[in-house]
Amino acid sequence: MKCLLLICDGMADRPVKTLKARTPLEAASTKNLDALAKAGICGIVDTIAPGIRPGSDTAHLAILGYDPVTSYTGRGPFEAAGVGLEVTAGEIAFRCNFATVDEKGLVVDRRAGRISEGTEELAEAVNGIELPGIDIRFKASTGHRSALVLSGEGLSHNVSESDPHEEGVKPHTVKPLDDSLEARRTADVLNRFILECRRVLAGHPVNVKRIQEGMRPANTLLLRGVGVAPSLASFSEKYGLSAGCIATMALVRGVSRFCGLDVLGADAEASISGLVKMALDATSEYDFVLLNIKAADDATHDGDAEKKTAVIEEIDRAAAGLLDFTTENYLAVLSDHTSSISRRDHTGDPVPILIAGPEVRTDDTAVFSERAAAKGGLSRIRGQDIMNILVDLMNRSEKFGA
Amino acid sequence: MKCLLLICDGMADRPVKTLKARTPLEAASTKNLDALAKAGICGIVDTIAPGIRPGSDTAHLAILGYDPVTSYTGRGPFEAAGVGLEVTAGEIAFRCNFATVDEKGLVVDRRAGRISEGTEELAEAVNGIELPGIDIRFKASTGHRSALVLSGEGLSHNVSESDPHEEGVKPHTVKPLDDSLEARRTADVLNRFILECRRVLAGHPVNVKRIQEGMRPANTLLLRGVGVAPSLASFSEKYGLSAGCIATMALVRGVSRFCGLDVLGADAEASISGLVKMALDATSEYDFVLLNIKAADDATHDGDAEKKTAVIEEIDRAAAGLLDFTTENYLAVLSDHTSSISRRDHTGDPVPILIAGPEVRTDDTAVFSERAAAKGGLSRIRGQDIMNILVDLMNRSEKFGA
Repeated sequence: MKCLLLICDGMADRPVKTLKARTPLEAASTKNLDALAKAGICGIVDTIAPGIRPGSDTAHLAILGYDPVTSYTGRGPFEAAGVGLEVTAGEIAFRCNFATVDEKGLVVDRRAGRISEGTEELAEAVNGIELPGIDIRFKASTGHRSALVLSGEGLSHNVSESDPHEEGVKPHTVKPLDDSLEARRTADVLNRFILECRRVLAGHPVNVKRIQEGMRPANTLLLRGVGVAPSLASFSEKYGLSAGCIATMALVRGVSRFCGLDVLGADAEASISGLVKMALDATSEYDFVLLNIKAADDATHDGDAEKKTAVIEEIDRAAAGLLDFTTENYLAVLSDHTSSISRRDHTGDPVPILIAGPEVRTDDTAVFSERAAAKGGLSRIRGQDIMNILVDLMNRSEKFGA
Repeated sequence: MKCLLLICDGMADRPVKTLKARTPLEAASTKNLDALAKAGICGIVDTIAPGIRPGSDTAHLAILGYDPVTSYTGRGPFEAAGVGLEVTAGEIAFRCNFATVDEKGLVVDRRAGRISEGTEELAEAVNGIELPGIDIRFKASTGHRSALVLSGEGLSHNVSESDPHEEGVKPHTVKPLDDSLEARRTADVLNRFILECRRVLAGHPVNVKRIQEGMRPANTLLLRGVGVAPSLASFSEKYGLSAGCIATMALVRGVSRFCGLDVLGADAEASISGLVKMALDATSEYDFVLLNIKAADDATHDGDAEKKTAVIEEIDRAAAGLLDFTTENYLAVLSDHTSSISRRDHTGDPVPILIAGPEVRTDDTAVFSERAAAKGGLSRIRGQDIMNILVDLMNRSEKFGA
């Protein structure tokens, strides 16, 4: 008996005026998701807690059964793990941008002309920087994106970020956010690291060539999303399930990696139906597979209700093959958080969930939507409840008591 | 975008026999509240937790987003703040009654003949009492009611009260409730304070005159509701909203003051429609306004189901102007606790809530009542969830994660 957890990133929404006060999920034609809702049991989920506005990172931690309040200090460690850096508990990590500063030190481009080539050579130079007592690990990701991990004694995540989040100003000096020796030392280390980056990147052949070709040089790094890597119990040991993750988003891959799931290769350009097929295939190897589909959240950030509706219909077509799966296995479909078309960002509203499989207590819900699910048999639960419910339905739960 | 939180104190009830097993809210004709329920989303709320019987103080703390378990030790500090005494975190406070004792020291009247005049002069005498190392602040409230704040090093709230809650017996000696030096010192200080009160009140001109006129003298103070003043985060900083409170009840005013809300003048004799109008007006100045309407709870304590039903109908008429408000703003209506006509006191049953405003996921609920709301789209939430939900609907919430 296997379990597939399909997380449709940011699919849930609020009623949208241009959709006649329906949500995109209500407006979309979703016969396959509706059939799954009918075959299963529905409910609503506060992935963190009612009204709390989750990030994708904290939401996925909670859905995988980890308390984000104790395990999360910032996005950096998860992003770093997601791009393939080794990150160990206690290490400090950042997301970084390759960026362009002018001769006065002002940021002229936070994305270094959307650099797409040569970042691995630049990363090699950054990795060559030596700071006493500190181990630096740096990796380029897609485009201007990259991640940084610092390890060493006496570091703290309680420091400010250098990314000013706007252009025409100088990058921020990193500052300690408390009076501890560790925070002051970490800020000092980071400011020296950033200075060294400027030095090794300025004259780097990749940048010399970019300037010659009229492109903006990637002559500095902007740091943000600082966090300390948590020590998390292994998902497989926690639930007694071998587990894999399919996600195109580095952040979700990073969260899954931290929880000990095998992160399976997923082409960033893969179609939604391709991802669903990959996930179904992976259930032959793993007891549990998490599939994250990012497209509905992307459409929300663009504020495009029609595109979001169309994406949901594409997810629905891809879900055609899932009903058969639920004859002998368990499937859960939910959104990791609500994403509001009008706010163009995540919101704290609960998300709909459906769970289908051989022994669920089916309810009257015959449509998969935010409002239909609110009447479902699961009532209102929390993100951290989901894995316990699924593991128990699979008859793999431990008894608490005798 | 503004938010109005209307708390109908003790409005929720259990089914009442004389109302044909309906609750007063079900029996009342409430077309305006019903219209708001229809326009919004409903649910039920355990203001503290299921089955836990809240006070008005702990319920309001929870609804404002504070954990009553960690912030509440007794009513005293909130009552004291409510009558206008300055109360600082760590200080010890009591509610007090002016009372009458006879020459044997027995309580003959716990309310000193329902004294209504001269209490400010008496309070002045009490404030003149000097105890080494202790600062005494005392204030008369309405009628026989008053409040006391003690500040000084090494005080504890873990002491018993002097009010015997019956007549014909001596007031209790205040006793330490643990072995700490602080509790023993505080009990000692209070017993000396009460003795001094007897001394300064006995021969006070106000009491001499009362006796001459055949009225009972206010010749002692009875202390109860001891609590230590908590240190609470500012509501405005917590939620990023400027906030005002309109309440005729000192206790609610005190809780609001502790949370940092501006307590606006509200005439104790103001009509319900006058209070609602005042609250709507206050939303032009504040992002968030809390309005407490006490009348339904008062009717419950009298055990008068017909009066309670009539009060609810009066609230409904006053609510006529609220539907327009919800076109561009958010409104929440709930009871802070259930108050049972048969028990004549608060009970731990959940209370109905409705939230109306531009982007709520409306549900099928078309009637505002305890049982109708239980079928609503909010399902069952906690008091401490309410502010998070409202702030998120207002698009003012912080993201937890990335």
